[in-house]
Amino acid sequence: MSDNIRAILKNLMEKKCSMDDAIQGLQGDAYLDFNIAKHDISRSKRSGFDEVIFCEGKDESHIIDIISQLIDNKKNVVGTRASEHLLEKIESKFVKIKVNPLSRTFQLIHDVNPKLNKQLGICCAGTADISVAEEAADIAEFYGIDVNRYYDIGVAGLHRLLDQLDNLRQNDCLIVIAGMEGALPSVIGGLVAMPIIAVPTSVGYGSHLGGITPLFAMLNTCSEGITVVNIDNGFGAACAAKRILSHTG
Amino acid sequence: MSDNIRAILKNLMEKKCSMDDAIQGLQGDAYLDFNIAKHDISRSKRSGFDEVIFCEGKDESHIIDIISQLIDNKKNVVGTRASEHLLEKIESKFVKIKVNPLSRTFQLIHDVNPKLNKQLGICCAGTADISVAEEAADIAEFYGIDVNRYYDIGVAGLHRLLDQLDNLRQNDCLIVIAGMEGALPSVIGGLVAMPIIAVPTSVGYGSHLGGITPLFAMLNTCSEGITVVNIDNGFGAACAAKRILSHTG
Amino acid sequence: MSDNIRAILKNLMEKKCSMDDAIQGLQGDAYLDFNIAKHDISRSKRSGFDEVIFCEGKDESHIIDIISQLIDNKKNVVGTRASEHLLEKIESKFVKIKVNPLSRTFQLIHDVNPKLNKQLGICCAGTADISVAEEAADIAEFYGIDVNRYYDIGVAGLHRLLDQLDNLRQNDCLIVIAGMEGALPSVIGGLVAMPIIAVPTSVGYGSHLGGITPLFAMLNTCSEGITVVNIDNGFGAACAAKRILSHTG
Amino acid sequence: MSDNIRAILKNLMEKKCSMDDAIQGLQGDAYLDFNIAKHDISRSKRSGFDEVIFCEGKDESHIIDIISQLIDNKKNVVGTRASEHLLEKIESKFVKIKVNPLSRTFQLIHDVNPKLNKQLGICCAGTADISVAEEAADIAEFYGIDVNRYYDIGVAGLHRLLDQLDNLRQNDCLIVIAGMEGALPSVIGGLVAMPIIAVPTSVGYGSHLGGITPLFAMLNTCSEGITVVNIDNGFGAACAAKRILSHTG
Amino acid sequence: MSDNIRAILKNLMEKKCSMDDAIQGLQGDAYLDFNIAKHDISRSKRSGFDEVIFCEGKDESHIIDIISQLIDNKKNVVGTRASEHLLEKIESKFVKIKVNPLSRTFQLIHDVNPKLNKQLGICCAGTADISVAEEAADIAEFYGIDVNRYYDIGVAGLHRLLDQLDNLRQNDCLIVIAGMEGALPSVIGGLVAMPIIAVPTSVGYGSHLGGITPLFAMLNTCSEGITVVNIDNGFGAACAAKRILSHTG
Amino acid sequence: MSDNIRAILKNLMEKKCSMDDAIQGLQGDAYLDFNIAKHDISRSKRSGFDEVIFCEGKDESHIIDIISQLIDNKKNVVGTRASEHLLEKIESKFVKIKVNPLSRTFQLIHDVNPKLNKQLGICCAGTADISVAEEAADIAEFYGIDVNRYYDIGVAGLHRLLDQLDNLRQNDCLIVIAGMEGALPSVIGGLVAMPIIAVPTSVGYGSHLGGITPLFAMLNTCSEGITVVNIDNGFGAACAAKRILSHTG
Amino acid sequence: MSDNIRAILKNLMEKKCSMDDAIQGLQGDAYLDFNIAKHDISRSKRSGFDEVIFCEGKDESHIIDIISQLIDNKKNVVGTRASEHLLEKIESKFVKIKVNPLSRTFQLIHDVNPKLNKQLGICCAGTADISVAEEAADIAEFYGIDVNRYYDIGVAGLHRLLDQLDNLRQNDCLIVIAGMEGALPSVIGGLVAMPIIAVPTSVGYGSHLGGITPLFAMLNTCSEGITVVNIDNGFGAACAAKRILSHTG
Amino acid sequence: MSDNIRAILKNLMEKKCSMDDAIQGLQGDAYLDFNIAKHDISRSKRSGFDEVIFCEGKDESHIIDIISQLIDNKKNVVGTRASEHLLEKIESKFVKIKVNPLSRTFQLIHDVNPKLNKQLGICCAGTADISVAEEAADIAEFYGIDVNRYYDIGVAGLHRLLDQLDNLRQNDCLIVIAGMEGALPSVIGGLVAMPIIAVPTSVGYGSHLGGITPLFAMLNTCSEGITVVNIDNGFGAACAAKRILSHTG
Repeated sequence: MSDNIRAILKNLMEKKCSMDDAIQGLQGDAYLDFNIAKHDISRSKRSGFDEVIFCEGKDESHIIDIISQLIDNKKNVVGTRASEHLLEKIESKFVKIKVNPLSRTFQLIHDVNPKLNKQLGICCAGTADISVAEEAADIAEFYGIDVNRYYDIGVAGLHRLLDQLDNLRQNDCLIVIAGMEGALPSVIGGLVAMPIIAVPTSVGYGSHLGGITPLFAMLNTCSEGITVVNIDNGFGAACAAKRILSHTG
Repeated sequence: MSDNIRAILKNLMEKKCSMDDAIQGLQGDAYLDFNIAKHDISRSKRSGFDEVIFCEGKDESHIIDIISQLIDNKKNVVGTRASEHLLEKIESKFVKIKVNPLSRTFQLIHDVNPKLNKQLGICCAGTADISVAEEAADIAEFYGIDVNRYYDIGVAGLHRLLDQLDNLRQNDCLIVIAGMEGALPSVIGGLVAMPIIAVPTSVGYGSHLGGITPLFAMLNTCSEGITVVNIDNGFGAACAAKRILSHTG
Repeated sequence: MSDNIRAILKNLMEKKCSMDDAIQGLQGDAYLDFNIAKHDISRSKRSGFDEVIFCEGKDESHIIDIISQLIDNKKNVVGTRASEHLLEKIESKFVKIKVNPLSRTFQLIHDVNPKLNKQLGICCAGTADISVAEEAADIAEFYGIDVNRYYDIGVAGLHRLLDQLDNLRQNDCLIVIAGMEGALPSVIGGLVAMPIIAVPTSVGYGSHLGGITPLFAMLNTCSEGITVVNIDNGFGAACAAKRILSHTG
Repeated sequence: MSDNIRAILKNLMEKKCSMDDAIQGLQGDAYLDFNIAKHDISRSKRSGFDEVIFCEGKDESHIIDIISQLIDNKKNVVGTRASEHLLEKIESKFVKIKVNPLSRTFQLIHDVNPKLNKQLGICCAGTADISVAEEAADIAEFYGIDVNRYYDIGVAGLHRLLDQLDNLRQNDCLIVIAGMEGALPSVIGGLVAMPIIAVPTSVGYGSHLGGITPLFAMLNTCSEGITVVNIDNGFGAACAAKRILSHTG
Repeated sequence: MSDNIRAILKNLMEKKCSMDDAIQGLQGDAYLDFNIAKHDISRSKRSGFDEVIFCEGKDESHIIDIISQLIDNKKNVVGTRASEHLLEKIESKFVKIKVNPLSRTFQLIHDVNPKLNKQLGICCAGTADISVAEEAADIAEFYGIDVNRYYDIGVAGLHRLLDQLDNLRQNDCLIVIAGMEGALPSVIGGLVAMPIIAVPTSVGYGSHLGGITPLFAMLNTCSEGITVVNIDNGFGAACAAKRILSHTG
Repeated sequence: MSDNIRAILKNLMEKKCSMDDAIQGLQGDAYLDFNIAKHDISRSKRSGFDEVIFCEGKDESHIIDIISQLIDNKKNVVGTRASEHLLEKIESKFVKIKVNPLSRTFQLIHDVNPKLNKQLGICCAGTADISVAEEAADIAEFYGIDVNRYYDIGVAGLHRLLDQLDNLRQNDCLIVIAGMEGALPSVIGGLVAMPIIAVPTSVGYGSHLGGITPLFAMLNTCSEGITVVNIDNGFGAACAAKRILSHTG
Repeated sequence: MSDNIRAILKNLMEKKCSMDDAIQGLQGDAYLDFNIAKHDISRSKRSGFDEVIFCEGKDESHIIDIISQLIDNKKNVVGTRASEHLLEKIESKFVKIKVNPLSRTFQLIHDVNPKLNKQLGICCAGTADISVAEEAADIAEFYGIDVNRYYDIGVAGLHRLLDQLDNLRQNDCLIVIAGMEGALPSVIGGLVAMPIIAVPTSVGYGSHLGGITPLFAMLNTCSEGITVVNIDNGFGAACAAKRILSHTG
Repeated sequence: MSDNIRAILKNLMEKKCSMDDAIQGLQGDAYLDFNIAKHDISRSKRSGFDEVIFCEGKDESHIIDIISQLIDNKKNVVGTRASEHLLEKIESKFVKIKVNPLSRTFQLIHDVNPKLNKQLGICCAGTADISVAEEAADIAEFYGIDVNRYYDIGVAGLHRLLDQLDNLRQNDCLIVIAGMEGALPSVIGGLVAMPIIAVPTSVGYGSHLGGITPLFAMLNTCSEGITVVNIDNGFGAACAAKRILSHTG
């Protein structure tokens, strides 16, 4: 860091920049202070992500406040894991916001992210995993990624998967979503070479432990190089795909 | 039970049987009382199984005692999960006993079980599961079952499994053994129609939890009608196969 | 697999079959593509099972769609673990479908499965396990198996079980269902010789852990050859019984 | 407490007791201060127990110190869960101390506890549970209780248990010890009326979880009024029996 | 058992008893067969307990059926862990049944149990544990035991407990109930000599794990001879007290 | 203790105090006996805390009773973790009580605690943790501590935290609250020297396990000297701060 | 798949390919059958990976066999998680194999993988994580990736990390390894934009649970788009990096 | 931060400081780069702590390297959780280093920390907890704190604790260490007003879960304001005491 600081200080002493510019250069990052929240507006510059509102566990009135202030500040509004009740409230209060009950997300885009011209395949094992898949798709598309869907290709009917194999191989990255025993990423992982992000879901019962079972199964995969995100975390998988697809190539 | 009792009593009162026969008929089952152990010799009559010595956790001198008394009583001697140390002790002390260090079993057969003329396929996902597979094979063969081995056919290289599919289908029952994420039974289960007994193994690390992960994965299989036994329990899987193959058809 | 492929190719080259037949022979399996679901119609040929709709976690509108398309395709409709709300919806929308609130299943049979002429005993430890038992019974009967019920024979009143022992022994296979400490399969397993499928239930509280306790107890049974399915999984137990009873004898 | 205090104070003021007696009466309890340990010598008066040395996790030199000081103070020396190594050390250093490698206990009795003239039955399911059973027996006998042993009567061979039923019923209290699935206390509990203390053992593997499985099974027993102590805690079970048998009747 | 059988058979052959008496003697136990349930009416003879209806998890219509049939058979009706909804239904349908919403029990006594003339102290750590305590009290009183209540004497205010010490010592047995860290039984256990049954409750949050934390704390008590029942199991604690207080002395 | 007792006894014998004073001196502590509760009024003298009503799990009518009796006895009324329903009931019944739905607390102060003139910083990682933070703030202010709030400074936007560093360092003690992965206390702990009390929250999903994940992360912190309280336990954190800030300096 | 098959069949019928070529085209994948193992030699073609020998849990003689056969077949030999004992055995038996005791790997390269010209940063929080880091480095270099090491930059001394920030940003992908509370990936994730693969390690004690704590912390990260592999799985992280760096750009 | 930066920049522009001073002021912290480790020498300035070598899991040669370099740099050397083997190695190699096998620590002090003139009480429940207590004592004394020891005062013999109460109250802070059920902090917490840091230990067996049970018990304490550190973490407790005692008053 020392070289960078020295350069800024030199610029300042040689009057090549103002003191305010020097302070900003030394301080780096900024945020909007909403009292209850500090919305991180330089996150995009640092890590490539807009700050997204994760709604679960938050007071509804706090969420409404944050949305209002983002709109006032002409920032993108993106939220995930909103309850049905919250989505209705948002829809009635902010008519321009697009809500999606299946994926439990909402969006109001001010600055469109540029197209990445990369193909992301989103696979899921069963019909019950679709909500998580659609959350991933919404977020990936928000970041300018093209999404291809491969649903209900679980390993109990292997031919459904093998039948899609050539199509799967057209993608630059795959998100593979499964509940139950979580075997799908292992099987796909042995058949394709691109990056694979596995997402366990909470679909199951009994010894499924709310998704811990497919999570642990995926972490113990016998196929090389598969990475995993949290249970039901379609959002996180899409962000990981974004890191991969925007940084390289 | 009442009708049965009435019949025995009638026989007794009509002198069709002795009082000792009546007592035995009413009492039913018998055992050898070895002081520290009560060896169940009527188990075979009731449930079809000889009592097998499970060695783990038992005092070595107790095991030696039980073996000696079984030999004296001209009974079959079969033991499982013996430590290397115990196997050496047994080998040196009882020269006729056949020990198998890979499967950690030992046997001295007095009454050979009749051939069942049934084919049991034993599959395992990786080389590290072979010890469990061989325990299952030893016990199955003890009960007169023909064993076919399909080793190292894990899902990371699916073609190895598909290549064996026609062979697998020749069996009357399958035991499918896997550690890691435990996906193999699900994949096989979607492809074949015969009974499948899944065995998770303790092969893995970290979030594998000593085999709890493949155990739970197998219990949550998306393939219909797969049953599961305890972690590393090759013995139990063979016994379940024995119930299936000896009772029906 | 290579021999099979060679045979098909020979047939094709010698014009003994059409190219479409050859493709079907090489490809094997088929499915109905319902967009959100790929209904596996060759599963019956491969593993002997119709694809059954597992309702938990699925969007109700997705389930209604799948049912409609199955009816349009003249396929059997069988569903499990439907909520009370869903069953009412199905009943009002599809008048021909038979719903069973106790077992939480629904059925509309187009092609009746042939009678297997095998006896399946379904035992349960307490009155609270009956819902799981009835799910197993519904599915077993769907597959042409005769079902005999032995309810409320838990080990706290052992005479109730011993009294049924002769009846239990008339069956070709037993499903044994228990919550609480899950001891019933161990006790029955020591007394009978046929295949036993144990089903733990979520009936209990505190250290019962939603059924993990009887699940683990059953996996650690001291009786030989007992296999286990997931907590509350009456469906899976019936499918396992189907594999056993249809394949052998 | 106030009445008791008032009485002591009155006695003091009326010179019916010395100030030292009053202090002792108000203070109550006493202990031997061994620097690293405060050996509780009034425990026997309060709760009926001598302080026993639980050896696991303690520094061996600390244990030797405590033993020496107890001997110097002419107190009973009783220790449990001593390692083989420690037992040898004790045996060589304190020739009068009686060590028992099977139960892992040692004793040097100075004041013999009076005979209680009560019968305690100690049952165990398998041969591997004997070490825990013998720890319970040693401690019970130390407290003047008569012990009857019923070993290897596990539920897989129910007739072994039923055969002992009349004998079991002769006891005033039962300790029932089992590993594996821990079903034995439930079965016995349905057949007898006296107090039952269940002890899970760490005998098992895989999903046995070092004894957590039989522990939880016993806590979820369907038989009324069974209580449980910690895994492998033969000592605790004997102490519970002592509370029951010495206090009542 | 053999001697007993021989005696019965002798009596029969010498015409000292009828064949029906002999059958009953050999068969022993009986039950009412209610189709969905087999109500165990000889349990009282065997283990000293009436069969009590545990309501959780049972279908309400099944419970109503069982109650009706018990009333028709002039048997005691006792139920535990009934939901508020079920209690209202029972109250409106069976006017003679006494329901207790605080303890969630209901009773209709036909045959009063004889007075045992024993004192049972029921202690609880906090106000939130009272529901469990009252369940224990209801069941104990049903079995003819006198109950003394010591509520809100948790260890954070030790003087509240010490103040009751003399009173606590008047009892023949103690049930000690605590949620949170479950320390109360350890502290009382060091101060009194009679039998102690500890009951953990589900009162707490976060790392309390629904009562597993005080359960495990109680099982690991440093005070000698404390036994434990399942979380919130006031019923079980009362039954254990009944075994202790009715069998001895 | 003996010296203290001797002194009191001397005073009594020398008539320097009355017998009632002596009793009180020997007995020490006192409480209000409300039948269902024993409200500990000497706790403040012993440990510096008023007894606060923890509402979760308690019967609402019991809470209302306790409040009424505290008001009648002119004691401070403070309650935590009250449900929305209970807060409304309290508000309508006791008009003077101040309820706070965000922190789920209520207060009616009779004796104001003296100002401590200490600064307590309360930090939280995200907006969803605010409810826990406000509970801590309410309790701290009740004990006379000045509270400074630093909200939404989670580690994903490190500059928000670094920007507050100088402010954070003005405090005498910090409470640091975080859900998700619970990393905030580790990062702050490496940057400041005052006492830090970490509070994990139940904000998260999947492998978050209701807060166990940040709890364990905080306990495993690589920063020296951070202590932890239970999940969501803002109350406990404030009390710990009170111990620190009132006792020292 | 059908189009592909049709094309091959057409070629065959039009004699554009031999029957053996057609069989190979239809069959696809191949493997070396070593009796105890089926070494997957087409894995590289399918998923880009050589089959690597995971040594843990495997019989040493089996591993020696596999190595010998790979050498005979002129294949690359790469092994991970070898014990010290095994490494010594390999070193003495196969002099050309390069063993690395720190990373517990061994290699004998026959076909060198081409250089990818990509930079992979490997970060670790503490000195104790170095073994895992070196395993990742070995495997990454085997796949032709350039590795940059950033060790001992844990969050307790944040300046060590911030000091490296500009260097970290020069990489195309980061592997971030941490034990203890596992906070490092969250902090880095908020500061950089490239793909991040987090690796929890088993370094810690008590509530660390052998690495489950940092694993769960990483899965619950508040930084967007971080993916995770199994505990101590440096190998898997390197393979995931390989998928990312070889497929894109 | 901005004000601070502005001040430094002003100083620089007004030539009140050199550019190197400005860089250091802006950069803040420093460390010794030992290649495998970056020893944090400004930690003391930031958080008041020297960097201590936590030895568990680290390669012994790495530890020896770090010690050598610290000695060369004339820094304090303090290490914790060293194995017996490592301590012997250190003792033989660095004769000036003081090793303590009971507490498993070692020290070589170059700059003595100033006396804080504060009293820290270290309590432990049993003799087996002494090793953890001594680790805490060593570290506290290293930081200039006076330590008072209260050992073997567990709750099973309450009078041992009550007897020390007046002495305990003389301290400015208490560390309370307990294994088993971990009740000691709750009992002490209700009796004293100063800060209490609870340390669970791994002393116990069965359902003790290596210390998770007392850890959770302590987190669920009913006594106000008790904080907790990781299992066996005497070091962490001493550091927390250091934060409390050095910062305030």
